Amino acid sequence: SDIGRLTIHCADQPGIVAAVAGFLAEHRANIVELGQFSTDSEAGEFFQRTVFHREGLAQVLAELDRDFAEQVGKRFDMTYTFTSAATPKRVTIMVSKYDHCLLELLWRNKRGDLDMNITQVISNHPDLEADVASFGIPFIHIPISKATKAEAEAQQLELLQGKADLVVMARYMQILSAEFLNSVGCPVINIHHSFLPAFAGAGPYLKAKERGVKLIGATAHYATANLDEGPIIEQDVVRVSHRESVAELERRGAEVERSVLARAVQWHCEDRVMTFGNSTTIL
Amino acid sequence: SDIGRLTIHCADQPGIVAAVAGFLAEHRANIVELGQFSTDSEAGEFFQRTVFHREGLAQVLAELDRDFAEQVGKRFDMTYTFTSAATPKRVTIMVSKYDHCLLELLWRNKRGDLDMNITQVISNHPDLEADVASFGIPFIHIPISKATKAEAEAQQLELLQGKADLVVMARYMQILSAEFLNSVGCPVINIHHSFLPAFAGAGPYLKAKERGVKLIGATAHYATANLDEGPIIEQDVVRVSHRESVAELERRGAEVERSVLARAVQWHCEDRVMTFGNSTTIL
Amino acid sequence: SDIGRLTIHCADQPGIVAAVAGFLAEHRANIVELGQFSTDSEAGEFFQRTVFHREGLAQVLAELDRDFAEQVGKRFDMTYTFTSAATPKRVTIMVSKYDHCLLELLWRNKRGDLDMNITQVISNHPDLEADVASFGIPFIHIPISKATKAEAEAQQLELLQGKADLVVMARYMQILSAEFLNSVGCPVINIHHSFLPAFAGAGPYLKAKERGVKLIGATAHYATANLDEGPIIEQDVVRVSHRESVAELERRGAEVERSVLARAVQWHCEDRVMTFGNSTTIL
Amino acid sequence: SDIGRLTIHCADQPGIVAAVAGFLAEHRANIVELGQFSTDSEAGEFFQRTVFHREGLAQVLAELDRDFAEQVGKRFDMTYTFTSAATPKRVTIMVSKYDHCLLELLWRNKRGDLDMNITQVISNHPDLEADVASFGIPFIHIPISKATKAEAEAQQLELLQGKADLVVMARYMQILSAEFLNSVGCPVINIHHSFLPAFAGAGPYLKAKERGVKLIGATAHYATANLDEGPIIEQDVVRVSHRESVAELERRGAEVERSVLARAVQWHCEDRVMTFGNSTTIL
Repeated sequence: SDIGRLTIHCADQPGIVAAVAGFLAEHRANIVELGQFSTDSEAGEFFQRTVFHREGLAQVLAELDRDFAEQVGKRFDMTYTFTSAATPKRVTIMVSKYDHCLLELLWRNKRGDLDMNITQVISNHPDLEADVASFGIPFIHIPISKATKAEAEAQQLELLQGKADLVVMARYMQILSAEFLNSVGCPVINIHHSFLPAFAGAGPYLKAKERGVKLIGATAHYATANLDEGPIIEQDVVRVSHRESVAELERRGAEVERSVLARAVQWHCEDRVMTFGNSTTIL
Repeated sequence: SDIGRLTIHCADQPGIVAAVAGFLAEHRANIVELGQFSTDSEAGEFFQRTVFHREGLAQVLAELDRDFAEQVGKRFDMTYTFTSAATPKRVTIMVSKYDHCLLELLWRNKRGDLDMNITQVISNHPDLEADVASFGIPFIHIPISKATKAEAEAQQLELLQGKADLVVMARYMQILSAEFLNSVGCPVINIHHSFLPAFAGAGPYLKAKERGVKLIGATAHYATANLDEGPIIEQDVVRVSHRESVAELERRGAEVERSVLARAVQWHCEDRVMTFGNSTTIL
Repeated sequence: SDIGRLTIHCADQPGIVAAVAGFLAEHRANIVELGQFSTDSEAGEFFQRTVFHREGLAQVLAELDRDFAEQVGKRFDMTYTFTSAATPKRVTIMVSKYDHCLLELLWRNKRGDLDMNITQVISNHPDLEADVASFGIPFIHIPISKATKAEAEAQQLELLQGKADLVVMARYMQILSAEFLNSVGCPVINIHHSFLPAFAGAGPYLKAKERGVKLIGATAHYATANLDEGPIIEQDVVRVSHRESVAELERRGAEVERSVLARAVQWHCEDRVMTFGNSTTIL
Repeated sequence: SDIGRLTIHCADQPGIVAAVAGFLAEHRANIVELGQFSTDSEAGEFFQRTVFHREGLAQVLAELDRDFAEQVGKRFDMTYTFTSAATPKRVTIMVSKYDHCLLELLWRNKRGDLDMNITQVISNHPDLEADVASFGIPFIHIPISKATKAEAEAQQLELLQGKADLVVMARYMQILSAEFLNSVGCPVINIHHSFLPAFAGAGPYLKAKERGVKLIGATAHYATANLDEGPIIEQDVVRVSHRESVAELERRGAEVERSVLARAVQWHCEDRVMTFGNSTTIL
């Protein structure tokens, strides 16, 4: 419970690791795990994720943050965050009718494999209410039609107030508007049912069948205003052949989707994912 | 040496398997291996590959073929081929400067893992002459420029006379003209250095790096006039991360390319690949 | 609903395929899918699985079976079975406290991905009763101690009467006695939490950690009196590194276990798995 | 050419990262890449690999090493090494008759994918002389029989003088004696043609066929006096089925062997592999 995480991003330059490690040592924080990446040996971007142990972390976290800004952050013009592993992220899941991604997240969370605080599930359909209720998690049904989309999104944003450090679209079959994404105030992870950039858009399994591909896949990415174009967090594929019908491809794809989404959400909740431009560094 | 293969394609209809198996039994050909696929349980396409043992096959192959046409082929309006496993396919390999796909094919063939008769290697660059010579295989250098392309292709077609049941483009960095493909008279297999349809066209590894994908792949397909659009035979991928440079992606991709191409060529040489529309059935 | 399956095993000999296909054609059964395998081109074992369509199958299934015995089965000294795809197998699941394999099977069955009739779940612990109840399936708790094992197994066997064409041990943490296996009267599938034959026995994840392996796996096999030695149906692995603790290896292993077990059960329920000696042929 | 690598191993304790990073910063060495791992958050083992850029590295490497010992190494009781990326490791390859692992290493080295200085190939058979000669690398044939084994190993050790920072057994089909391993004075990497610990010892593909496994694999490990028991560097598997003969399993296995061995050798040559007890940390 005294485990903290520090993530850093800045322009690469000499002395960063020494300054950060020196700061932590002086503040009696012992490094437990350190991941680092530079995009280039000269003039690139610098990323670091440090997990540390500090006696009585809860009491000093705010102070650490303030001191770090003054003693290290400003000097290197850093973007950084301090978090405590004892405070799991608040997560709102959005879903439509497909249950496989939702259930995978609920179930992994329940058995302690995926540490997050699922505050609510929002859906544009009532179908999955009982499934969600059996996990003791609030389910809110907000129907959406073309005419009511703006209003529905306003309702969703209100529900998210204080309830989301992360939004997960677990096969939520609506396109979020640019306004929603601008206002949401936290990252949004989406699962796309294809190996992007192949078969972007709707109906990927039909397209895959028609093109005769020998592997189908899934992609978890951060949602951005450009649909299917946000930074990719995780991808995986499964082998198929001429034998599988489109329905069977969907079934196999569903299996890939749920494990890919679960991994992406877990890495995000562990502060492992850093984005720069349109790609991710996972430490 | 008395092993034969019969491949069949026709509209699905009752009684095909019985008719074919009956024909073979009457002609003293014992079925060793049988693969069958129907695209649909009603009114689909029917594909079958049968490997059989027939004493003295070489003497009776032509007769089998003729009898089959009369007794079975016409009745079901079949496309079919009889081949003898003792007569490996004649293969011409076309290559530019990258050696990895070429060497993989030469080496597998030499050690007896890939049964084919490599008659010659044609290249638009002289670089790989010594490598090919060390395998005792003729290497023909035909330079190509915009101005000489038509002439060069005419030369290639002449070289292929009697020397190719299959042409393999083992990272041959020229686009074959529609005229060439119309005249070549045998299938052409190409290896594309991406997981098609993602990153079709040139520079796929740079595109993959820019898009931040987590897997890169390769695709072996039959060449058609529409570049990168022919029927896919085999695909595979390898996991990558933010750490790999474009050069490193190329290196890892090269490893996938050579195994994917080798598998595709092997399946083709074993008469396992049947095409219909734009996709393949592999039996 | 008129889809039937015929599985065959006998000594390889000329004319089998023709005889079987001829029989089906005469009985107006159209072959939809045919898988065949011979262990050797001479004097091996012959296996065949044929899926066929026959108008009014339910009415003629018994007759087909009887006719086949007389007209084909005896002649080739075959072991064979006719089944109707419309009659899913009755399956009893045995489980202890781990829920992941059980829930995967219940959930795939519920959403229509795994066609079987789960008649009951038997457990030596009461923990998973509510989970099973939520699927509307009977849960029977039979505690087991050393002293009561024989009695408990007798109870289990009674419960299985008329309720099981297949028993699935979904991480059932008790060793079934040879007497139980002799009396059960149907196949038993077990999931072992390692890539057999590596790390047979208890505590495989600890052993894997101590040995420093780079992949961990799971194995679904038919249970036999020799623990961990029965015919293997399916196996898979997942990549690990020095970073994972034993607890984390267990978590990743659990993911492999549930997909491997689900595939094995599905193939069995589709009559795809044939055993000979200590290995399986999957058609 | 001014890239250096520092690898460290010691008991975990506060302040290591800060001390090392501080040392490098003071000595004008800029960290390019940093990998770190602790076996436990308290009282575990600490491993770190740091890649750095230092102007004029060749001139100061010895001085860095000396200063580090005094200023950091002694304080934390470290095992550490400084190496220059500009000085590839000297590698002697030992081989028998199988060529696939040898050729893979020679070819990757030749095309610049695997940075090492292959000083010689030693074999107990003359078969591969021409293959090795075509790469311009010395081939030394030292026959071995039971009677001559001690003498042959003495010859081998003499040949290794000044010619090996690493010995690679690329399917060298002789067991190295404990005396040889004690005297060799550098690490020895072996490729075992199975997924250890399954099928340790001879004839793994036959054993795999008999056991009916659905995956076969290969293991690269450091050789120790206990055969097949040394620390594992890398493993991989490939899917097989009932269809493959033992010969075909060998062929597929050979493909896995060469890529697994090549990866293991590459990681070793990049100073990524650290051993502790019987397992490896790969940074």
